[in-house]
Amino acid sequence: MKKEKTAEDYMRLALREAEKARQMDEVPVGAVIVKDGAVIARAHNLREKNQQASAHAEFLAIQKASKKLNSWNLSDCDLYVTLEPCMMCTGAISLSRIHHLYYGTEDPKGGATVSRVQVKQIPHIGVYPKELTGGILKEECAEILTSFFREKRALTKQK
Amino acid sequence: MKKEKTAEDYMRLALREAEKARQMDEVPVGAVIVKDGAVIARAHNLREKNQQASAHAEFLAIQKASKKLNSWNLSDCDLYVTLEPCMMCTGAISLSRIHHLYYGTEDPKGGATVSRVQVKQIPHIGVYPKELTGGILKEECAEILTSFFREKRALTKQK
Repeated sequence: MKKEKTAEDYMRLALREAEKARQMDEVPVGAVIVKDGAVIARAHNLREKNQQASAHAEFLAIQKASKKLNSWNLSDCDLYVTLEPCMMCTGAISLSRIHHLYYGTEDPKGGATVSRVQVKQIPHIGVYPKELTGGILKEECAEILTSFFREKRALTKQK
Repeated sequence: MKKEKTAEDYMRLALREAEKARQMDEVPVGAVIVKDGAVIARAHNLREKNQQASAHAEFLAIQKASKKLNSWNLSDCDLYVTLEPCMMCTGAISLSRIHHLYYGTEDPKGGATVSRVQVKQIPHIGVYPKELTGGILKEECAEILTSFFREKRALTKQK
């Protein structure tokens, strides 16, 4: 019998997406969307390549999942993202009615799920995601970001 | 000499976009983006047609403007939208660094600019929009929404 996947397994797939972003010199954040145990969308941050402020990993994953299901309503889906979503993405998660949001590491500066804004405490908007779990593979999700920015700073100093 | 356009003039163009949405049986919200006095993007709500939770008027307008300017950074642009932006759109406005946000009527239920969330009070996220003005053609912007939902309710009762 096939072993059921854990939240960590799905977050590892999101981390692979983050790694793709890193290789493109994009801030390394990745996301996957899961329905009935199957990954139906995966995406990574593409802000610089696309020149779109909205090209965040979880945002692109939501767009892909809606396209695949031909529905804006993703209430049967869970979302895994390596970094706590920003205000835009938290709003998109709420509007698309994602069931369970799992994130890796917190974003104290721009996070709008638990850091700058506590989404579950906002009436109406906070109805979705229904469930919210942070800290999945927290260290790996934080490390890929920290090392990216460490390298950036080192390069800037060299110049 | 050509008379300079006022905020009301641009909001009237956003209202025309809202009217296009109404004719498609979409919730009637419209938006335009202005740079150096010229309208560079216009859009209306297309959630049902596109089956994307993110297909809000101002959100689509931001994507169009970034495509046109080939830049995610819209710090030279102003945005006019008939309804107070939701959390997703307020986040997108912040990320794309819109200079001045003008909205028509408030959204007490889902608005995340002044209603449910007061964006200018959030450190870091609230840096943009730099300026925020509500209540431009407030009555017209509210009326198109009220009459849309009044008709919807009447139709539901008939069924």
